[in-house]
Amino acid sequence: MRPKIVLFGDSITEESFMEGGWGAALAHHFSRSVDVVLRGYSGYNTRWALTVVERAMEGVCPAGAVPPAAATVFFGANDASLPDRRSGFQHVPIPEYQSNLRALCTYLKERWPSTVVMLITPPPIDEDGRLKDASGDNSGLPERTNESAGAYAKACISVAEELGLPVIDVWSKMQQVPNWEKSCLRDGLHFTSHGNSVLLDEVLKKLADEGLSLDTLPPDLPLFSSIDPSDPLKSF
Amino acid sequence: MRPKIVLFGDSITEESFMEGGWGAALAHHFSRSVDVVLRGYSGYNTRWALTVVERAMEGVCPAGAVPPAAATVFFGANDASLPDRRSGFQHVPIPEYQSNLRALCTYLKERWPSTVVMLITPPPIDEDGRLKDASGDNSGLPERTNESAGAYAKACISVAEELGLPVIDVWSKMQQVPNWEKSCLRDGLHFTSHGNSVLLDEVLKKLADEGLSLDTLPPDLPLFSSIDPSDPLKSF
Repeated sequence: MRPKIVLFGDSITEESFMEGGWGAALAHHFSRSVDVVLRGYSGYNTRWALTVVERAMEGVCPAGAVPPAAATVFFGANDASLPDRRSGFQHVPIPEYQSNLRALCTYLKERWPSTVVMLITPPPIDEDGRLKDASGDNSGLPERTNESAGAYAKACISVAEELGLPVIDVWSKMQQVPNWEKSCLRDGLHFTSHGNSVLLDEVLKKLADEGLSLDTLPPDLPLFSSIDPSDPLKSF
Repeated sequence: MRPKIVLFGDSITEESFMEGGWGAALAHHFSRSVDVVLRGYSGYNTRWALTVVERAMEGVCPAGAVPPAAATVFFGANDASLPDRRSGFQHVPIPEYQSNLRALCTYLKERWPSTVVMLITPPPIDEDGRLKDASGDNSGLPERTNESAGAYAKACISVAEELGLPVIDVWSKMQQVPNWEKSCLRDGLHFTSHGNSVLLDEVLKKLADEGLSLDTLPPDLPLFSSIDPSDPLKSF
């Protein structure tokens, strides 16, 4: 039976199966060995995620089935919206963000003790891109800033360390890319194809660190290359 | 609990989550309402598929879980390989292809009576593209022809009619596209982005005909657009 990898997060997870998306690329990478299960909820912060996590995970792994091999928890981009600007209703203060992340990870680990729960920090923000995306908002101020996103990224890493969980610091990693503002982000927040590939590489590395790779996860049936043309049926 | 759509087929299914792929696009289209489950097996014909179908479907829907809403059965491109050319060991004669398709569909319908089982014919073949792809084969003859693929497509449609199942005639549909040989097929057999979109459109139409669309399949939790900014938590 194939293992599962669950992607739990906000819009950057929800849209991860669009063209060039990191979720689809992960599913393609593991096309013969893993079922990638999408649980992305556009606009959600950790407060809302915590309210729905039980319903979101319903049916991912029915009673008696093998628990997921891994789950990514990728929230913070909405929590980090500034409280006094147009997305203020999505804002969650850092102490509550941390306590919500702790509760989300604890919920998943209690439900599925063997599952690798992996945190992903919010991505960096290109404020110029956010301003250009702000139709109807004439304040001239971005609703998210890179500085705020960075504080949430640090807070996320600290929860991961406290809980002993792997974490991907996509906020820092992405900012190492030349011209990351435009090459990785299409609207100052959501990923371009290149941004998606930066995250995908990190997810694959981190999964491999946890023993989950094409070397360790067998194909679910014989690969074409292993089938003997002179007697194909003996392979099955 | 989200419904599932299972994609069962050969390489054109296995690679359907690569960039621009029809499987990933289907998963994106239904990102909040359906789990798309990939069961693509590169190189497989219906004879091999029939040998493994029980193992392939293991874990898709554990006992007690809701059966899949739909399953695509997309084989024939390998069965239609000509028997006396380099891919001859993948060839399956038409009468056996039909009897295997019947058995595959019957297996799925017996396992999951409520599931919409949908057949997809093999795609057309661009023989020039196959010749250019034939490294190491100096025969000058393509291992698949469009005429043969067309005969398998007709045979597939006839099985669907006999069993009363929906069928997508991608062999005919794709040949309505100007310059289909190069615009839809990248190596004479596998799909370009445009070829993928041709199939995706047909799959979405056929699913809608069977009552499976964004209008009928609800999002699994409140959409961001339905959340009241003045009191977000009351939505959950």
